[in-house]
Amino acid sequence: MPEVLSTLRDSPTLPTVGVDVGGTKVLAGLVTADGRVTRTVRRTTPERTGSAEAVEDTLVAAVGEVTGGEEVLAVGVAAAGLVDREGRRVRFAPHLPWRGEDVRTRLESRLGLPVVLDNDANAAAWAEYRHGAAQGTENAVVVTLGTGIGGALLIGGQVVRGRNGMAGEFGHMQVVPGGRHCECGKRGCWEQYCSGHALVRLARARIRNEPTLLEELCGGDAAHLTGPMVAEAAEVGDPVADAAFEEVGDWLGLGIANLVAAVDPEVVVVGGGLSAAGDRLLGPARAALARTVVGVGYRDLPPVVQTVFGPEAGMVGAAELARRGVEVSPVHR
Amino acid sequence: MPEVLSTLRDSPTLPTVGVDVGGTKVLAGLVTADGRVTRTVRRTTPERTGSAEAVEDTLVAAVGEVTGGEEVLAVGVAAAGLVDREGRRVRFAPHLPWRGEDVRTRLESRLGLPVVLDNDANAAAWAEYRHGAAQGTENAVVVTLGTGIGGALLIGGQVVRGRNGMAGEFGHMQVVPGGRHCECGKRGCWEQYCSGHALVRLARARIRNEPTLLEELCGGDAAHLTGPMVAEAAEVGDPVADAAFEEVGDWLGLGIANLVAAVDPEVVVVGGGLSAAGDRLLGPARAALARTVVGVGYRDLPPVVQTVFGPEAGMVGAAELARRGVEVSPVHR
Repeated sequence: MPEVLSTLRDSPTLPTVGVDVGGTKVLAGLVTADGRVTRTVRRTTPERTGSAEAVEDTLVAAVGEVTGGEEVLAVGVAAAGLVDREGRRVRFAPHLPWRGEDVRTRLESRLGLPVVLDNDANAAAWAEYRHGAAQGTENAVVVTLGTGIGGALLIGGQVVRGRNGMAGEFGHMQVVPGGRHCECGKRGCWEQYCSGHALVRLARARIRNEPTLLEELCGGDAAHLTGPMVAEAAEVGDPVADAAFEEVGDWLGLGIANLVAAVDPEVVVVGGGLSAAGDRLLGPARAALARTVVGVGYRDLPPVVQTVFGPEAGMVGAAELARRGVEVSPVHR
Repeated sequence: MPEVLSTLRDSPTLPTVGVDVGGTKVLAGLVTADGRVTRTVRRTTPERTGSAEAVEDTLVAAVGEVTGGEEVLAVGVAAAGLVDREGRRVRFAPHLPWRGEDVRTRLESRLGLPVVLDNDANAAAWAEYRHGAAQGTENAVVVTLGTGIGGALLIGGQVVRGRNGMAGEFGHMQVVPGGRHCECGKRGCWEQYCSGHALVRLARARIRNEPTLLEELCGGDAAHLTGPMVAEAAEVGDPVADAAFEEVGDWLGLGIANLVAAVDPEVVVVGGGLSAAGDRLLGPARAALARTVVGVGYRDLPPVVQTVFGPEAGMVGAAELARRGVEVSPVHR
């Protein structure tokens, strides 16, 4: 379709749409060529026990609504799951109903637009590289700290995908031999010690033994404690909540030290829900990095910084990947 | 000097020289454009307490001897130490007298040839990428297993250097929190469990309690036990030596699993002195990798293979880096 192609080539300033498909919500945004978000739409993600079509319906509706009839260049989709190396299929996603369907082709056909598919951590890293905390670097590590740990490596201006499209699975690097059981089936994975889950577990363990605001926040039942409650209590200086952040931050720095030994990045960007805690988390992490990394006397330590795009990083990155996809290979279909 | 440049451009088939400057020996080789080694020269490395000039004298003499007056394109030097990002200086080398001198400029001036300088693990990785076990890959991990662990990451056809030129320091990734003290000043570093040193330590610990050929090989004094003795005993099925290799191989696989989680490489190449043990080491490593890595059901495991160039990898890689240096930037001076 040469007319479409010439339109694409002549329209580098058209916006793109980024859609972050997570386990609980679908977040779509209209993103300008210089990385500004001019409109967003949020939908609830259909049940994971539902059909692949139901997710795609939600996604297509969100794209329609966020463009509002405006012409766009392409659509990028960031999925919370394992995307194949070719960017066509979601091979596995614990919270989504996709199970290996050719999502990209199906969405391109329904939307009539070029579609790019990647996983959410890769997309978030790309947003930080293009317009955020990793801008201007050649070599960056992005750690996405939510319920678990995701992440991405940016090397030479590219997100490293790897043999299986699985590069950046930092959360399952083993940090304690024979340590805590992980949902992945292994033991001692980093995310067992450093994640939203770990934060809540650490706070829970202390809740009965020390006076804490958390007792009140969870209505006296530690089983009802959540990450946001721990964050809220830490905000007003609760010592139990503070200690939980300190310990998670310490493990964060230790894992980052391992990545720094391997990759020697120019910057380490921390994103995901927990990164909203800012220096409460990153302070202990920086201290642990300096204490643990090899060759401190012979190296500049990389700055450990907070995400610029926060919860919109996956969405913005997906939109940016869509733009790059069109620019790099306008005939990619 | 336009005459020199035009000579370089017109002579892509001239050989290059690679020199591997290690703590005990200087190994120089004449390497053809297709990666064949046609002549080698070996010299003893001058004392680390001596002068930088003494090492350079040895190096210049070795280059002169290995070329035998034949015209060459350039010289590559692989040094067992921390080379700065620009490839000019050896910032730190525990076994060499270089302490930050501009080695590259000094050697270029003495040799009258373009010189490229890199660390030995990066050079070895480059040899494997160009003509060895990582050929044709976009994404490879090279683990160099000797007294300690060195290594390199190959991504997108480049050796990743990093912010400080220190990428690939896999040996100091922490695998045991609060574990064994390491020479680097930290604790629990991978090379404390997986290295020539670890192999000898493990064998020593068993030598008094179990019947073993090692007793005889070390003359009844465990303090005299060496890595080659353990290798020799394992070769004839000595159970103590076998168990030491098995345990080191197990730790090798565990550390590789962490690198695979982070980088998802197409291949993992194991080089360095210990790699000569072949499947005795790599067998247990492959088993531990399969047992420990995340997402086994959703990924192809990368093959874990032995170096092709063995002890000549650093030398061949240095020669190849010299060739690339001239091809990529003929006016690099």
